[in-house]
Amino acid sequence: MRNLLLTLCYDGAQYHGWQIQNNAVSVQQVFQEALFKVTSEKPEIKGCSRTDSGVHALGQVAVFDTDKNIPDWKYALAINQRLPKDIVVQKSEEVPLDFHPRYTDVEKTYEYRILNRRTQLPKERLYSYFVPKKLNVDKMREAGVYLVGEHDFKSFCSQKTKALSTVRTIYSLELIEEGDIVTLRVSGNGFLYNMVRIIAGVLIKVGLEQKEPEEVREAVEHPMGKAAGPTAPAHGLTLVEIKYLSN
Amino acid sequence: MRNLLLTLCYDGAQYHGWQIQNNAVSVQQVFQEALFKVTSEKPEIKGCSRTDSGVHALGQVAVFDTDKNIPDWKYALAINQRLPKDIVVQKSEEVPLDFHPRYTDVEKTYEYRILNRRTQLPKERLYSYFVPKKLNVDKMREAGVYLVGEHDFKSFCSQKTKALSTVRTIYSLELIEEGDIVTLRVSGNGFLYNMVRIIAGVLIKVGLEQKEPEEVREAVEHPMGKAAGPTAPAHGLTLVEIKYLSN
Repeated sequence: MRNLLLTLCYDGAQYHGWQIQNNAVSVQQVFQEALFKVTSEKPEIKGCSRTDSGVHALGQVAVFDTDKNIPDWKYALAINQRLPKDIVVQKSEEVPLDFHPRYTDVEKTYEYRILNRRTQLPKERLYSYFVPKKLNVDKMREAGVYLVGEHDFKSFCSQKTKALSTVRTIYSLELIEEGDIVTLRVSGNGFLYNMVRIIAGVLIKVGLEQKEPEEVREAVEHPMGKAAGPTAPAHGLTLVEIKYLSN
Repeated sequence: MRNLLLTLCYDGAQYHGWQIQNNAVSVQQVFQEALFKVTSEKPEIKGCSRTDSGVHALGQVAVFDTDKNIPDWKYALAINQRLPKDIVVQKSEEVPLDFHPRYTDVEKTYEYRILNRRTQLPKERLYSYFVPKKLNVDKMREAGVYLVGEHDFKSFCSQKTKALSTVRTIYSLELIEEGDIVTLRVSGNGFLYNMVRIIAGVLIKVGLEQKEPEEVREAVEHPMGKAAGPTAPAHGLTLVEIKYLSN
């Protein structure tokens, strides 16, 4: 028995998220079918992040057991030949048998991409959130500072969260401007359900000057029983990287 | 009677190019249907560039006559409401009645986008050409220098061209590296059929060290009855801008 770790990229536009579900096509299901064609095995595939419907990934991590003796790096090539073009395995490597992608210390990085110009660009429509009114990015940065560090993010997650604790640590939060694109890049030890999309939604409100940076500090310091702002649409979000810090 | 100039963006992935044709959906046809819904008129729509199947545009220019009295800037908004999401009018403005987009001095700029990394990225698959072997971009630049200026580009166009003269002027040619993306950006007074894609194909051969920069000079100085290299695939190409220099 061996434990294999795969790094996956996908264009989430055509999928109902990562997780297998009834009546909708998920990345996990399509990946499992491709894996079955390679190994004739149907192991449980453990994804590190349950990305939502429409969310993209550059560095999703998936782990599964296998009894096959294929060299670890060859899995990437073999599975890619059976996958549709919108899912690509970047790397496959063997990891210790006791490695579990969700119970290991990680640093996760997400990017939320905003197209900030007067008119939509067709090529961006599935990969960024279109905001036609000019954003005040300096104000967004000012508000973002309050989110960095260990905090109770109860006001920055779906109120349907089942997490036992809503305390998380954000290691860094940046707002990068390149031409018409404003990218929110955020790294942390984990993110609650809808957390990055709500952070994006709140910071966009600040950028539109419909909310003060000070209100973001208030929401971090005194979490209420409701989200501090709207949930930005899924298609602007990409899971960029998962770094394993120990193991 | 008024003459209106529109600047159009489109994602060419789902279209068989700009030009109306039988049995295939073109950008021009879809645009004409949207225009008809706005004005109830079906004028001849003159596009400045006949982009090929799969080619994208950030700045296509289209001109048409109308008898309607809608303010010129409102056309963009009205037509966008009737267009699918992969075509967007960026701007609409009135131009003199004798303005013709193809018989006016222009500077056209195209970009050819190459994804140069070991594995494909799904989000890039329709917008860049995937080249897994590392490109020697310095050699590509060296070869590119020979293309700038006024030359007979007979070896850099489809041999099916119907152009009376194959002499064109390239004003500038740059190779821009950003992470895994290598972008060929080229501006000129006009481009022959498949010219940018053949330039891209030739420069990629040079970058792969399958052709010497010196051979590119040879092909420019002594045009032969065949193309100097392969035609790079359409989906890497974007018509970026058309600048009208006089009129």
